[in-house]
Amino acid sequence: MQLSQRLRGINGGGSDGWDVFLKARKMIAAGEDVTELTIGEHDIGTAAPVLREMYDTALAGNTGYAAVPGIEALREAVAARVSARTGVPTTSANVLITPGGQSALYSAHIAALDAGDTGLIIDPFYATYPYTVRAAGATPVSIGARAADAFQPRAEAIAARAPGAKSLLINSPNNPTGVVYSRTTLEGIAQVCTDHDLWLISDEVYDTQVWEGAHISPRSLPGMAERTLVVGSLSKSHAMTGSRCGWLVGPEEAITDLISLATNITYGVPGFIQLAGLFALRQGEAFEAEISEPFRRRRQLAHDVLAGQNAVAMVPAQGAMYLMLDVRATGLSGEGFANDLLDTHRIAVMPGESFGEAASGHIRVAMTVADDVFVTALRRLCAHAETLAAA
Amino acid sequence: MQLSQRLRGINGGGSDGWDVFLKARKMIAAGEDVTELTIGEHDIGTAAPVLREMYDTALAGNTGYAAVPGIEALREAVAARVSARTGVPTTSANVLITPGGQSALYSAHIAALDAGDTGLIIDPFYATYPYTVRAAGATPVSIGARAADAFQPRAEAIAARAPGAKSLLINSPNNPTGVVYSRTTLEGIAQVCTDHDLWLISDEVYDTQVWEGAHISPRSLPGMAERTLVVGSLSKSHAMTGSRCGWLVGPEEAITDLISLATNITYGVPGFIQLAGLFALRQGEAFEAEISEPFRRRRQLAHDVLAGQNAVAMVPAQGAMYLMLDVRATGLSGEGFANDLLDTHRIAVMPGESFGEAASGHIRVAMTVADDVFVTALRRLCAHAETLAAA
Repeated sequence: MQLSQRLRGINGGGSDGWDVFLKARKMIAAGEDVTELTIGEHDIGTAAPVLREMYDTALAGNTGYAAVPGIEALREAVAARVSARTGVPTTSANVLITPGGQSALYSAHIAALDAGDTGLIIDPFYATYPYTVRAAGATPVSIGARAADAFQPRAEAIAARAPGAKSLLINSPNNPTGVVYSRTTLEGIAQVCTDHDLWLISDEVYDTQVWEGAHISPRSLPGMAERTLVVGSLSKSHAMTGSRCGWLVGPEEAITDLISLATNITYGVPGFIQLAGLFALRQGEAFEAEISEPFRRRRQLAHDVLAGQNAVAMVPAQGAMYLMLDVRATGLSGEGFANDLLDTHRIAVMPGESFGEAASGHIRVAMTVADDVFVTALRRLCAHAETLAAA
Repeated sequence: MQLSQRLRGINGGGSDGWDVFLKARKMIAAGEDVTELTIGEHDIGTAAPVLREMYDTALAGNTGYAAVPGIEALREAVAARVSARTGVPTTSANVLITPGGQSALYSAHIAALDAGDTGLIIDPFYATYPYTVRAAGATPVSIGARAADAFQPRAEAIAARAPGAKSLLINSPNNPTGVVYSRTTLEGIAQVCTDHDLWLISDEVYDTQVWEGAHISPRSLPGMAERTLVVGSLSKSHAMTGSRCGWLVGPEEAITDLISLATNITYGVPGFIQLAGLFALRQGEAFEAEISEPFRRRRQLAHDVLAGQNAVAMVPAQGAMYLMLDVRATGLSGEGFANDLLDTHRIAVMPGESFGEAASGHIRVAMTVADDVFVTALRRLCAHAETLAAA
């Protein structure tokens, strides 16, 4: 039976960039001792009190259909949080609760794009981005950020691809590069969006993981609230990846229509998860700092390890739970280096090429293992790079 | 800012049929004592041992990203269940775990339809059906089942609308009519699907609620496994509506591509919910019978109440948690009767017109309140209809 072209087209042909990851998984399954630095997920689970709240609220009767836009108290809490962090007046009518940030990303693209439209993305990109645009029946066009610019995208490069496009997806703090977009970068992006009447879809799921500078939500820039859809989530900020609880913040008119979409895509998010999420949000900034602290600490450890060598250069690690390392001095591609490192040292990292073309010659290292394991792996990685660079 | 035509088009214009429902909600909010017979949800919550399993598995560490196609053990359990209940050999490769049956419905339509395609539905239909087809960017075309045929759809009526269509969505046991499609009906439908190369999307979420005859999954009919996508869920069978855990069963090739879609729509279903669902499935048929027993019992009570009068006729209530009642003898439309009943007796039911055009002059009564409340409301409803019919 014939499947729809839209469904068949999601993968877009070619490799999906997960070859090294899958190879590492096979080695682990075969009993080999592999250090896994590929995964964007905390090495801790969801906090016990959050799980207890989930259980208690479920036992108390919150096991039926929850309101599709989200439980009003959670929508209000997200709105208050966004207002406080960005200064943009935001009410529950601007908030749709979604089953995770990925669902918010998908919904935002359905809102912005019709079949056959063009959605812009920045390369390097989080793995799902081009697939999500295609899943919406549209065509992704990627704009390379350059290593020489520390992966801050240039407004003129975006403007060059903007004619005919309907949306631009950005992500700061950025996965995979760890870069936090500067005010200059974001103001340039806002100008392009205004000039070319683009929806700006701003994925801000790492907004509590900022090590240098400050996170600026582009929705707070002049004239941008009306054309910006912000993706948020409890996954990274509250170590609730598996709970699938996120949100989309945007103009009330868009959210109203997106509620109709949510009614038909998922019919809402489990009430007990939403109430656990509300409980987690109410723990405040100290709890969020506790969740992000290991990444801040390991980033500093990485600086110390890398200080003693020249074969590996670090892209400014300003935020998120990743390091992007430049391994071009080794003469290998990111993929070549990652494969070599896995084969010779049983250390798994993601090739930069897994995230587009702009980060070729780089590797992404997730800071998601215990400090001592992380430092040992980084030392071996650097020693291996030095050997290759010297050869 | 301009939203996509697809998003703006979901609601399709016109009333969504929830006027009486919303009016009842307002009355309740204002403190009035309204008997609510509108909602398709058990009057019990999810069983405590299921919630305990969810909590225990979460505490044990299942709080990270779960495999997007679903946890293998749950996929296998669903496959074994489907194999046992239908006789169709089914493996985990035929199963995608989804965040509820609604998500499976949406995904099935994305798989079958491209933008601008036509998807067939049967009228009367569950409230989301036409919206879900439109959310997929396609056009719903409805085919009326007739009250005179006890709402069993006629194959020739479907065949007349099939040329140019890509899919047909059916639902048996049926919401809103309570009808279970006969083998003759299903064989006729299968023939139309084969003749016109249609995907058959079979919503079988009420398959454990059958009071007369037997549920037949059309996937088990000759040649149909390759063109049928079956929607299943734990919502109705295991009183887990709020957990949002369902599945889609279909050809392996379709499921493979649908996993890519699920990666981009939701990135999987919470692992602790899936493990709770697995636990619920393993409780076996006795547990399912316990969940459905109140509806079986209330259906019998309804037969007893209706036996003594002629103003209200019951459509054969063969399955699901609803009664479809013919109130045409009152001279009112379903909507007129429902409004009148709410105004005069504070009893809320759904007008048949809320589910399309075919059930006009009918009302849907959900059997989702305690037995004594249910019987009292039905008696008043019949008395009211008799007064109207006599006038």
